[in-house]
Amino acid sequence: MNYRLVSLKKHSEWKGKIETVCRVPVDGRDALSLAYTPGVAEPCMAIHDDVEKSFELTRRWNTVPVITDGTAVLGLGDIGPEAGMPVMEGKCALFKAYGDVDAYPICLRTKDTEEIIKTVKIMAGSFGGINLEDISAPRCFEIETRLKAELDIPVFHDDQHGTAIVSAAALINALKLANKQIDGIKLVINGAGAAGIAIAKFLLKLGVKNITMCDKKGIICKGADWLNSAQNEVAEITNLKRINGTLADAMKGADVFIGVSGPRCVTKDMVSSMAPKSILFTCANPVPEIDPADAKEAGAFIVGTGSSEYPNQINNVLVFPGLFRGALDVRARTVNTEMMIAAAKGIAGYVSEEELSRDYILPYAYDKNAHASVAKAVAEAAVNTGVSKIK
Amino acid sequence: MNYRLVSLKKHSEWKGKIETVCRVPVDGRDALSLAYTPGVAEPCMAIHDDVEKSFELTRRWNTVPVITDGTAVLGLGDIGPEAGMPVMEGKCALFKAYGDVDAYPICLRTKDTEEIIKTVKIMAGSFGGINLEDISAPRCFEIETRLKAELDIPVFHDDQHGTAIVSAAALINALKLANKQIDGIKLVINGAGAAGIAIAKFLLKLGVKNITMCDKKGIICKGADWLNSAQNEVAEITNLKRINGTLADAMKGADVFIGVSGPRCVTKDMVSSMAPKSILFTCANPVPEIDPADAKEAGAFIVGTGSSEYPNQINNVLVFPGLFRGALDVRARTVNTEMMIAAAKGIAGYVSEEELSRDYILPYAYDKNAHASVAKAVAEAAVNTGVSKIK
Repeated sequence: MNYRLVSLKKHSEWKGKIETVCRVPVDGRDALSLAYTPGVAEPCMAIHDDVEKSFELTRRWNTVPVITDGTAVLGLGDIGPEAGMPVMEGKCALFKAYGDVDAYPICLRTKDTEEIIKTVKIMAGSFGGINLEDISAPRCFEIETRLKAELDIPVFHDDQHGTAIVSAAALINALKLANKQIDGIKLVINGAGAAGIAIAKFLLKLGVKNITMCDKKGIICKGADWLNSAQNEVAEITNLKRINGTLADAMKGADVFIGVSGPRCVTKDMVSSMAPKSILFTCANPVPEIDPADAKEAGAFIVGTGSSEYPNQINNVLVFPGLFRGALDVRARTVNTEMMIAAAKGIAGYVSEEELSRDYILPYAYDKNAHASVAKAVAEAAVNTGVSKIK
Repeated sequence: MNYRLVSLKKHSEWKGKIETVCRVPVDGRDALSLAYTPGVAEPCMAIHDDVEKSFELTRRWNTVPVITDGTAVLGLGDIGPEAGMPVMEGKCALFKAYGDVDAYPICLRTKDTEEIIKTVKIMAGSFGGINLEDISAPRCFEIETRLKAELDIPVFHDDQHGTAIVSAAALINALKLANKQIDGIKLVINGAGAAGIAIAKFLLKLGVKNITMCDKKGIICKGADWLNSAQNEVAEITNLKRINGTLADAMKGADVFIGVSGPRCVTKDMVSSMAPKSILFTCANPVPEIDPADAKEAGAFIVGTGSSEYPNQINNVLVFPGLFRGALDVRARTVNTEMMIAAAKGIAGYVSEEELSRDYILPYAYDKNAHASVAKAVAEAAVNTGVSKIK
């Protein structure tokens, strides 16, 4: 199927992938007096006396906006806020279908870091959590960091952490099949944008010791004059031997390649130069860094992509519905590292030893039980780390 | 029934009066590829090429936020954004139930006029229209005026214009029963806030010639030093004989009294001093300006209130669902006076000559056909005045 053409037709038939529904009776005088005026004055005043009650008397507890400025939508780039809407609506549909979270899309007509932060802060009293989406680097780092510090509800930049968590889950299971230990592997990440940097930082926390990051100009090494501040920061904690060189240099002898870069930048020779039982996650969308068939032919042991067209889809749709479900269920104040690790392990652990194979390292995105198991793991981690307001 | 206490219990059971639902299949690989990546890239790029397509390929065409800063919620005053949420959710529930509009509540943590304007403008690309709610005067005037001028989707401050429209509809029908002409009546409005001023301006457009406005200090007369700028402006076009005096003075010989003020500020003597077949709309919430039974006893011909506890409820819930339904259906660029007049006449005209009585001057709020008839009238007016983008 040509998904793109069929999708355009479907979108014009659907005229929207989500909608709002009314959950209460409003079909008569008494019903109106309870759901609306005069009765509604009482829950209003209860919240006025204790703002925390907004999580009990309104839908706030289950509501998460998907917020973008339209600057880094899919692999399409800076296409503008309105053009980002079909993706944001899609996220909201998946939030509901897989996590029973009430999400709605808010696309912002500004690219100014301070304006985005201010807008989200001003709206935050309406929501139980904030999902930032498709905001380009390096602005996304400051926006997320500041909002996390200044708000007391979970703030999550999906492109960074959703991608990091699902990549980590895929890595955990792929290493089981390759029979390699996480602290012994040599790992290469190509693409030092929001996703690549978040993956590197997260995998270090998970126990990977040897990470080399590359971008268009090759290996990222501390002190190189072409790095932005976020890249400089990650250069400090990766590439410990301060090696310079090309992506091809980096990949020689590597156990794992994770690509969040662009189409067709990896050759069969590069794959052949990797260590035995090599693992490649070529997540560039819509065209991966190398065709999975070519990678296999060149000796790759396990290949995953960002697309549903091949086995092992590594997509953050496996993360955000369950992660927010878990966080909202226990009224978490934030999303901390422990909750993210729990999400990664929850996803990985959902695939049993018997099911696990080179073509099935991750649950299917549309397996609702997988999301429930992520939610459970995240909620437990929130409670255990003391960031839950409900015990 | 004690609506307030039962309402609190209901709200804590409901845990939200609206929710989001997913409208598309996402239960398998193909479904995901159409609703989400990679298929979704195509509608994104179609909107990138023509932003207008966001009204065809996403839910934007049917989506309206209910936006407040929580400063003038019901009769409760400045209770804060989170505390305003039960009212905003209620509006959203009614938007859906009566108008099939997808509305969601956004409560803003700012009272700064410029910040509110900027926040709404930044979000506007996500919506088909903007409903402003419960923002206190005089900031609400500037906020609405500026947003109307700067956005190309309908912007509507419900407390001003919803109230004006439903009051006008009630007046049209009450005058039929009293057998008086609109251009011959003497009309008094008590309460020179957002609603009162909007009612005065709108009734002048509908043909009322003689309006006297009062506030706590009495009759509003051009040049009085206690008036704010909005009151000064309305003083220019009302009280043409420049009379000073009390509310009691104003009501002597008046045909119509419209109260959007506070509880129990009208006495039986004041009602007795009015012209024969006097009409009183005592809309203060939750306690009207005079008890309807007392008003009747003092000789009132027709009495309406803001509450569902008495006959003739004059509540803007009769307006906003149908008004936005009509505006969205024809992709109106704005809400103009003609559309508002059409809404008022649509509401009034829904009550047939046979049904019309002193205790039934307006349709019931929960009569869905009434809202449909408002929508039809508004859509026609939008097309006839050339502000529709769909013919």
